[in-house]
Amino acid sequence: MKLKDISSPKDIKGASAKELEALAEEIRAVILRQVSEHGGHLSSSLGTVELAIALHYAYDTPSDILIWDVGHQAYAHKLLTGRYEQFSTLRQRGGISGFPKRSESIYDAFGVGHASTSISAGLGFAVARDLSEKDNHVVAVIGDGSMTGGMVFEALNNSRQTKRNFTIILNDNKMSISPSVGALSKYLSKLSVKHNSSLEEIGKFVRSIPEHVGNKLKDLMESGRLALENMVNPGQFFRDLSVRYFGPFDGHNIEELVETFNEIKKLPEVCLIHILTQKGKGYDLATTNPTKWHGSDPFHIEDGSVVIEKPRPTLTSVFGKTLLTLAKQDKKIVGISAAMLDGCGLNILKEDPDTADRIFDVGIAEEHAVTFAAGLACEGFTPVVAIYSTFLQRAYDQIVHDVALQNLPVVFILDRAGLVGTDGPTHHGALDLSYLRTIPGIVIMAPSDENEMRNMIYTATQHKSGPIALRYPRAVTYTNDIRTEFTELPIGKFRAVSEGSKVLLIGVGFMLAKCLDAAGVLEKKEIKPTVIDARFVKPLDIKSYKELFKEHSIVVTVEDNSIAGGFGSAIAEILSEMKDPPRLIRIGLPDAFVDQGEIDELREELGLSGNGIAERIIDCLSDKND
Amino acid sequence: MKLKDISSPKDIKGASAKELEALAEEIRAVILRQVSEHGGHLSSSLGTVELAIALHYAYDTPSDILIWDVGHQAYAHKLLTGRYEQFSTLRQRGGISGFPKRSESIYDAFGVGHASTSISAGLGFAVARDLSEKDNHVVAVIGDGSMTGGMVFEALNNSRQTKRNFTIILNDNKMSISPSVGALSKYLSKLSVKHNSSLEEIGKFVRSIPEHVGNKLKDLMESGRLALENMVNPGQFFRDLSVRYFGPFDGHNIEELVETFNEIKKLPEVCLIHILTQKGKGYDLATTNPTKWHGSDPFHIEDGSVVIEKPRPTLTSVFGKTLLTLAKQDKKIVGISAAMLDGCGLNILKEDPDTADRIFDVGIAEEHAVTFAAGLACEGFTPVVAIYSTFLQRAYDQIVHDVALQNLPVVFILDRAGLVGTDGPTHHGALDLSYLRTIPGIVIMAPSDENEMRNMIYTATQHKSGPIALRYPRAVTYTNDIRTEFTELPIGKFRAVSEGSKVLLIGVGFMLAKCLDAAGVLEKKEIKPTVIDARFVKPLDIKSYKELFKEHSIVVTVEDNSIAGGFGSAIAEILSEMKDPPRLIRIGLPDAFVDQGEIDELREELGLSGNGIAERIIDCLSDKND
Repeated sequence: MKLKDISSPKDIKGASAKELEALAEEIRAVILRQVSEHGGHLSSSLGTVELAIALHYAYDTPSDILIWDVGHQAYAHKLLTGRYEQFSTLRQRGGISGFPKRSESIYDAFGVGHASTSISAGLGFAVARDLSEKDNHVVAVIGDGSMTGGMVFEALNNSRQTKRNFTIILNDNKMSISPSVGALSKYLSKLSVKHNSSLEEIGKFVRSIPEHVGNKLKDLMESGRLALENMVNPGQFFRDLSVRYFGPFDGHNIEELVETFNEIKKLPEVCLIHILTQKGKGYDLATTNPTKWHGSDPFHIEDGSVVIEKPRPTLTSVFGKTLLTLAKQDKKIVGISAAMLDGCGLNILKEDPDTADRIFDVGIAEEHAVTFAAGLACEGFTPVVAIYSTFLQRAYDQIVHDVALQNLPVVFILDRAGLVGTDGPTHHGALDLSYLRTIPGIVIMAPSDENEMRNMIYTATQHKSGPIALRYPRAVTYTNDIRTEFTELPIGKFRAVSEGSKVLLIGVGFMLAKCLDAAGVLEKKEIKPTVIDARFVKPLDIKSYKELFKEHSIVVTVEDNSIAGGFGSAIAEILSEMKDPPRLIRIGLPDAFVDQGEIDELREELGLSGNGIAERIIDCLSDKND
Repeated sequence: MKLKDISSPKDIKGASAKELEALAEEIRAVILRQVSEHGGHLSSSLGTVELAIALHYAYDTPSDILIWDVGHQAYAHKLLTGRYEQFSTLRQRGGISGFPKRSESIYDAFGVGHASTSISAGLGFAVARDLSEKDNHVVAVIGDGSMTGGMVFEALNNSRQTKRNFTIILNDNKMSISPSVGALSKYLSKLSVKHNSSLEEIGKFVRSIPEHVGNKLKDLMESGRLALENMVNPGQFFRDLSVRYFGPFDGHNIEELVETFNEIKKLPEVCLIHILTQKGKGYDLATTNPTKWHGSDPFHIEDGSVVIEKPRPTLTSVFGKTLLTLAKQDKKIVGISAAMLDGCGLNILKEDPDTADRIFDVGIAEEHAVTFAAGLACEGFTPVVAIYSTFLQRAYDQIVHDVALQNLPVVFILDRAGLVGTDGPTHHGALDLSYLRTIPGIVIMAPSDENEMRNMIYTATQHKSGPIALRYPRAVTYTNDIRTEFTELPIGKFRAVSEGSKVLLIGVGFMLAKCLDAAGVLEKKEIKPTVIDARFVKPLDIKSYKELFKEHSIVVTVEDNSIAGGFGSAIAEILSEMKDPPRLIRIGLPDAFVDQGEIDELREELGLSGNGIAERIIDCLSDKND
């Protein structure tokens, strides 16, 4: 049985255990080759090959519903559900997504990308089945890393809303992107390590207790809600949430998994099957360092070396180094991240003895991260919460209610703002300027280069009257010329870059470079625009802006954020109050979800390029628009 | 000892148990009198009188940090911390808040209003203490209702980030606003009912086991992580999260509480003290029906009758009745709320046998509510998620990522939009139009009267191409003339109300009435404005709007939402693209947190009144601005 012959999961039914194992090996090789050539999520997908096979073997997908969590581990699932031919287009413009996506396949029952959603969604499918009196099964897969997200607990707490089978598979590899943190993670480890060895012994012992003692013991334990079952069946934590626990099982043993699934799907209740898998399985470099190999650029399989070295440091590393410098000077600075110490650049602070005990990884728990920071801020600390733009959406209410309402000086660092590229619509940080701008009293900054960024980080840590946020894209720095001094920036003031007339170009963050490109194009056409660097998205120095506006007939805002409610809207608000305002051209991401693709490719397509911007201006000057 | 002599908690130190009990009675009487005269949160505050006394007696506040969750139960706390004199101003304009508020008192360590934040914040305070090498205690109080919120689990999972004492008090009264739901609630009940009776018996039995058997048993159970301790000490669920459990205790026994607190504060770890309290204690009507008496308008203490009858049904009940009618016809309609079936009007569907099994209360778990709805929508259901405007902020990411990105037809009903009155800044629904407007593909509606509202609910349930939201204020209906037919409204189209010239007034939702008031004022000054009902906030029929704009020189938007990013911004966006646009006056809530007060009083003050609007227009016409 070869992958190329599998057009749907039906084609693996009836295969022998041996054939399935061989299939697993082929899938692993295909995934490794694809990611090594084009990049992608490696470790997680290598860890769930047997799981995907066993699921599609035991269940009747797509009638039976299979929901992945996060979904970067679903490559084998894609290969088994008719997407082998397209697999080489993974994560590319026009190709298949790196995550399950409803519009891509009927086998992708629920689109994912953010963590901790699968049980909630699965419960929706299960209740829909109950209400429709259908008899399909519903299976939600969730990683131990995702289990740290509060939504999971909310969903488990509601799981009895189905009275029939709903199966949760806890794929326990001890990792989210970084190693899993927290008490539950430790609890799962205890389950997986201790019980295996003690179960048999306990069973033997219990059988050896004299019957009269044993029965009395059993009665008493039941009356104390600690049935004897606990002793031979761990997972009480889940049972306390009305979920029946099974496991742990070897997540790489297809035969055992299939048998287990077939048995458990008969049970009329919510069941959690705990399986142990190895992140990166089958590729030694990845099993040794699964964090590094979580998401990867193209690499040479033999030695893991990257195909193309990054020409300069990333903005993420600029943040990490800058904060390290500041935190060494100021002992009140505390760093907080949500399962992303590496991804956000805080790892170097975690590794430095001067700052290590002030760096907190709270797991995938953005809500807690923000309110935890609020508590620290109340006591005079300067918490720096570093979370990807798209994931901070999870904590919108906490920023409003726990931080901004109390004017607490929490610093928000939004990495991966704007377009993130091949991870696609679930991961683009397209909304942050819009949703943050709705929050009273917050300061929002976007640096246009790495030196500005350093100054903004410094400014943020000096700002004591309320929350302040700083967002920047997934990018390498523009220059190696990173200065060492810090300057505190005046809140709300823009920075003049070049003076011209008629056209005013306002760049937000790294989009300033695109404005300068556009200025270059325009200058060839004898138009010399004024260019400014917005620096701040909120508050705005309205008076100075109005003065500038009066001197120009066209104002152009350029941001890598949605045009709905973003910086351009803030400028529109100002213009709307003026008599005879200049025309405004708002350039940014569309008010729509943007597909996957290389960042530059997408920007080009969306008009976020020197030529794209210049064209819009020339059109407006020749008055084609109204 | 009398309340009037207590200027700080120091004044109760050294009081006898009897004196404290008498104090409790006095506090209860004061709370009952205050709420009966001016309205407020009754049941919760009556339930925590002894708790508040015991906490301030055992702990050294404000050095020791005391954090309440939600905070509507903190009236006794306010009375004990120097606010007896001001207590009669509770929840009134310029008076003290109905919730703990940092700016109000040094005893209010952390401001609250939304649920499930206290443990996260408390952990922030505890870690701040550890890092500062201080030795104060930190105590977070949380209700069993709030325990259903995922943040709590995120916080518990991180609790080992302090290595010293951090005490969590689980105030278990079996209720959030409605009875608590879910598995954890059931678990807590088991703890409180079963263990009390079985603990002693188990202890006796264990002592009776022959030593060689007992020791072996103990060894084995420990090796299985089920130490003997479990049998005599329940609460394993919390221990699995690294939290040491104590209880349950009688939450009305001050002496026992004080002793317990004094012992537990010595322990260098995270401790959870489970106490049982009765919501409404001391007022029989409230103990019998704590949901009804959760929040109350002024009433007669003798018989509980309200002082002023509501003149007409509330919008909440219009929603409930409308959805009941629709859900009886369409079996695919499912209702979901987050601990607010009554508050949102879904209770009548829960009580009707035709619809009862399609109504789900998920507890205080807004994130889960939305993604659960997404799952249902995938299977062809029409989930109607009814959550107060301010609380839906919790699920911003889920609306974006799980619903809108997949174009799922989930209906969002936002009750309590705009100003909510005396609950104040934590509860105003001031941001919904702004944050929802950032979301691609969503439809946002605001009804201007109850018949419009019915049609919008109908339109929402007919809309199959993506999410659709409907928001309305806390208000009674304007008329008893509620029609019975339904009309589907054309998406994005405004409704002409009256034709005039020069000035165009656009009312959003119930602010249309204010526009009509303003038109009345203006007509006396010979200005006859055009008035339209926006109906939709997103999408907008830009072409028709532009035509209207061309015919007027001043456009006025009136909304009870923040002017930052709200409907007015959407109009500013359109205007900014026009040549020679009319002037825009955006009238709405300020880009700031609005204090408590009666709704009409606040609107008046903020210029959201006929006169306020007319004045702004007249100023603009006489060109005083800019």
